[in-house]
Amino acid sequence: MSRLSINSMTVRSWGVRELVDGCARAGIEAVGLWREPVAEAGLASAAKLVRDAGLRVSSLCRGGFFGADPGLVDNRRAIDEAAELGAPCLVLVVGGLPEGSKDLRGARQRVADAIAELGPYAGERGVQLAVEPLHPMFCADRAVVSTLGQALELATALPADQAGVVVDTYHVWWDPQVEAAIAASAGRIASYQICDWVTPLPADVLLGRGIPGDGHIDFPPLTAAVVAAGYTGDIEVEIFNEQVWAADPATVIATIAARYQELFADA
Amino acid sequence: MSRLSINSMTVRSWGVRELVDGCARAGIEAVGLWREPVAEAGLASAAKLVRDAGLRVSSLCRGGFFGADPGLVDNRRAIDEAAELGAPCLVLVVGGLPEGSKDLRGARQRVADAIAELGPYAGERGVQLAVEPLHPMFCADRAVVSTLGQALELATALPADQAGVVVDTYHVWWDPQVEAAIAASAGRIASYQICDWVTPLPADVLLGRGIPGDGHIDFPPLTAAVVAAGYTGDIEVEIFNEQVWAADPATVIATIAARYQELFADA
Repeated sequence: MSRLSINSMTVRSWGVRELVDGCARAGIEAVGLWREPVAEAGLASAAKLVRDAGLRVSSLCRGGFFGADPGLVDNRRAIDEAAELGAPCLVLVVGGLPEGSKDLRGARQRVADAIAELGPYAGERGVQLAVEPLHPMFCADRAVVSTLGQALELATALPADQAGVVVDTYHVWWDPQVEAAIAASAGRIASYQICDWVTPLPADVLLGRGIPGDGHIDFPPLTAAVVAAGYTGDIEVEIFNEQVWAADPATVIATIAARYQELFADA
Repeated sequence: MSRLSINSMTVRSWGVRELVDGCARAGIEAVGLWREPVAEAGLASAAKLVRDAGLRVSSLCRGGFFGADPGLVDNRRAIDEAAELGAPCLVLVVGGLPEGSKDLRGARQRVADAIAELGPYAGERGVQLAVEPLHPMFCADRAVVSTLGQALELATALPADQAGVVVDTYHVWWDPQVEAAIAASAGRIASYQICDWVTPLPADVLLGRGIPGDGHIDFPPLTAAVVAAGYTGDIEVEIFNEQVWAADPATVIATIAARYQELFADA
């Protein structure tokens, strides 16, 4: 249980204070934070709440969305926030195609350029950029980085203290190359996020993520590959799901903790 | 226009007779058929209708769905039907995970076994099995073959007259490796299918395919890669979309023909 982290989006009705209290009560040692609830709590207050409770911040979500305008000012601000929160990494959801554009290759190049631009700034502040491949169904509108192999190529253009990759089971489980790509990511895994792929997909495919064990993903081989690649960080549960959001957050955390012990005992 | 083929699913309200008549009237020389409308028309009648109109059958959809039981008897029947229709290939949608199973590797192995079993039967009848990678969002429930590279690996386990791959823009456009995979598929492309990726995805993601030009896919580079790989066959338009289905089929075909001339002039 010492590596389990609860991402704030999983218990979305909770602010930072309730998240920190709820996790501390449940014996969970780490939290993943999103910028919006951190801003609501106030950055310094959020950092203090986590610190005072003796918790770690496993990641800050999120930077990225490098569109026609890469938004470097806001991305630098996100890096600053991650540094102040003591988050080891800032998760980058890189953005889809700009409005009206079909130039996927160009969009991918702009992502590489933006990451190269931000890397030194992040590294100087002790924050690793965590390039997250999103499931290919989000390629047009949320992230033109679609596979772990592609994310790794982007990350390895920079030194390891500046950029790594996110392995999120939901986004990569289908990939015939996933185990090879995880192995190739040794020393570059910034974050391991877990949630399940449930079918049928809901009307809004953004909200189809399930609690591990509720869907189709076989977690142990993925976790074993991540462990074999030398990842020793937190294992973060990030779930977007209307039913999970409607449930009592403490119950959700208890369910997740039970599933974690069942499915991630090897970690 | 001589390579444009209309798949029967695109104008779903039409039976085989109407499809053949409508395409002949529009100057379209080839049709893609599904087994269900062929069965409704009667196999021999459908074959005769196409032949008498001087049309080609570009493909028969579909075999596959190799679950816990690979359904070899029905797949052999589908091969027989393709042969009788004069279709050069039978499209294989390989099926997802069996009910309750999370063994993706095992499911993929069973697909390889089933294709190896069916290949000689198909080759003897002049039908090429066309292994179709489906978009990764269908991995759990429709096809555990998720990339063109993976499909090619399955196909190349057999002689080229027995197995090839389908390049369907909708399923492969997001893949950072797609152009390399198309190049590697030289001599193995059994079918080139075109439709567009439109956002937002509809509530039923099966029905999100658009007429080329209505979405985010940049077709010319994909077509150029397919042509460079030596593919000289038909270019088939297969669209699953409630709005397209609700429109007048002759108008749909006219729109497709216009878009084809605009976007596929290089083919």
